[in-house]
Amino acid sequence: MVKLIVDMMGSDLGSAATKEGVRRFKKNHPDCELVLVGKLDELSDMEGYEIIEANDTVGMTAGAMEVLRKKDASMVKAVRAAADPEMHADGVISAGGTGAFLSAATLILKKIDGVKRPALVTSFPKLTEKGGYVTILDCGSSNENTAEELQQFALMGSLYSNAVFGVENPRCGLVANGSEEGKGSPLGKEAYKLLKEDTKVNFIGNVEGNQLLTDYTDVAVCDGFTGNVLLKTTEGVAKGMGNEIKKAFKRSCWSKIGYLFAKKGFDVFMGKMNPKKIGGAMLVGVNYVAVKAHGNSDGESFESAMNIAYKLAVNNVVAKIKEGFVK
Amino acid sequence: MVKLIVDMMGSDLGSAATKEGVRRFKKNHPDCELVLVGKLDELSDMEGYEIIEANDTVGMTAGAMEVLRKKDASMVKAVRAAADPEMHADGVISAGGTGAFLSAATLILKKIDGVKRPALVTSFPKLTEKGGYVTILDCGSSNENTAEELQQFALMGSLYSNAVFGVENPRCGLVANGSEEGKGSPLGKEAYKLLKEDTKVNFIGNVEGNQLLTDYTDVAVCDGFTGNVLLKTTEGVAKGMGNEIKKAFKRSCWSKIGYLFAKKGFDVFMGKMNPKKIGGAMLVGVNYVAVKAHGNSDGESFESAMNIAYKLAVNNVVAKIKEGFVK
Repeated sequence: MVKLIVDMMGSDLGSAATKEGVRRFKKNHPDCELVLVGKLDELSDMEGYEIIEANDTVGMTAGAMEVLRKKDASMVKAVRAAADPEMHADGVISAGGTGAFLSAATLILKKIDGVKRPALVTSFPKLTEKGGYVTILDCGSSNENTAEELQQFALMGSLYSNAVFGVENPRCGLVANGSEEGKGSPLGKEAYKLLKEDTKVNFIGNVEGNQLLTDYTDVAVCDGFTGNVLLKTTEGVAKGMGNEIKKAFKRSCWSKIGYLFAKKGFDVFMGKMNPKKIGGAMLVGVNYVAVKAHGNSDGESFESAMNIAYKLAVNNVVAKIKEGFVK
Repeated sequence: MVKLIVDMMGSDLGSAATKEGVRRFKKNHPDCELVLVGKLDELSDMEGYEIIEANDTVGMTAGAMEVLRKKDASMVKAVRAAADPEMHADGVISAGGTGAFLSAATLILKKIDGVKRPALVTSFPKLTEKGGYVTILDCGSSNENTAEELQQFALMGSLYSNAVFGVENPRCGLVANGSEEGKGSPLGKEAYKLLKEDTKVNFIGNVEGNQLLTDYTDVAVCDGFTGNVLLKTTEGVAKGMGNEIKKAFKRSCWSKIGYLFAKKGFDVFMGKMNPKKIGGAMLVGVNYVAVKAHGNSDGESFESAMNIAYKLAVNNVVAKIKEGFVK
């Protein structure tokens, strides 16, 4: 059985959003055990759940020092509970500040033996007939990386893609500014050499930004700075275009009628691109499942982050990464 | 009067595409003088134009050495013609390989006094009610940059935004993985300090990927590697979503009817996002207008690259950048 610890106080929209997320999730996963962490008075209506009291929160821009200092913060308590051997928990979910969560997860859950640096993973839907997802890492856990770290991201991303999306022998590309071997940042060129010799990864060479949502690769590896820009740019373009689609349909009474006719196809498509359905990013390379939900999570997106954590736990992603680093 | 030199042999689609582009452009700009560079037999139907014979081409992946060696290549001859004082030309357009064009432009047109490194500029439409464009640089002319180079990109981008889009005192942001001052790559943090003290630029701090197509900034500065990833990712998402929109309308006979009703709004929107309408990137920081058209330019996108070159020439962007670096 899967057991997840949930930080109920992290969302910008308050505990109403996380409570809605928990209720939605629980309806579809009655078998999953949940432990909720937060203020008792705000969680008094969550009957039937185990609750850990926590009366403080960490700021959105908090770093490692604040995390260590704020022992009664809900995020810190949630992460500590996940790491407590007596809890037998699989992982933790929080919508709190990214920096604080990454610090807490790294310091408290600790890195898997052999892993140089954990990485934040996100997956985007491929916009192709065949569908599927591309797994991108690091999406901003680090600011700067070494070639050896990128090489490890490739292995962790491949294990993730296999475990979460069932991709056999996932293709793994290195994000670069050109497809030929000589292209890439100085860091990327060094990582290219390491990956070319790496027998644990199905390395397919460089991948360019315009190939990410095609079926060119299953995993895309980059440093945390580039990954963060790439992730946010994709979200920005998708959101901007989504707004334009709505505007185009609202333009006139004719276009509104048009929407009624075309609604079905657009609902499928907009659902696929909805960041709320993606909802979270996982920190890979630590000893438990650690999912960071969007800071402005509403019930739907918090549920989706919980779904990701559940999927990762059921598929034993952490154990598979541990095995990958032993071999 | 504006005079432009056109490399007719650079497009992957051959001279038929560039010839169509030239004819379309000329129809709307009868006053602009054009000099065409290419094979005489392929240009025999271009009556009334001055033609420079060139019987060779440079490869798509050619670098500086090949550019210097291939003296009869159309791109090299076109760039040389632009730099020839007797020509009195304003600039040059080519759809040939990016690396070769950047090398040729830098070596032959030469950097403007004071400019450390030229930068490739692209502009994206802002997806807002107000419209307008965000100017992004460097989009891949360099692989690695110094903080001083980023500082100069900010000034060149601001002058470009003012000259081409008429933006008064353009806001200039630094692409980063977070909005606060402490965020950014090590390079970005250094550039932040320089830009904060720079009185020539209206620096507004960090800008994140999801703010680029909003009205948050007018100019976005980044190193060439990040800019190239950012540019191609944006193109990829826009293309992927464009395909999904088409698919959604083709889904059933009902959705096809829906398209007929909503067509007008979608044509406006898809036109805005059409990369063919953007068509080219400019190399700023050299002594002439230098526009790189898409490698797979058809007539429409080659025309649009010519439009950009014309606009840059009419608005004296090169002279304004020269002034900006004298002050």
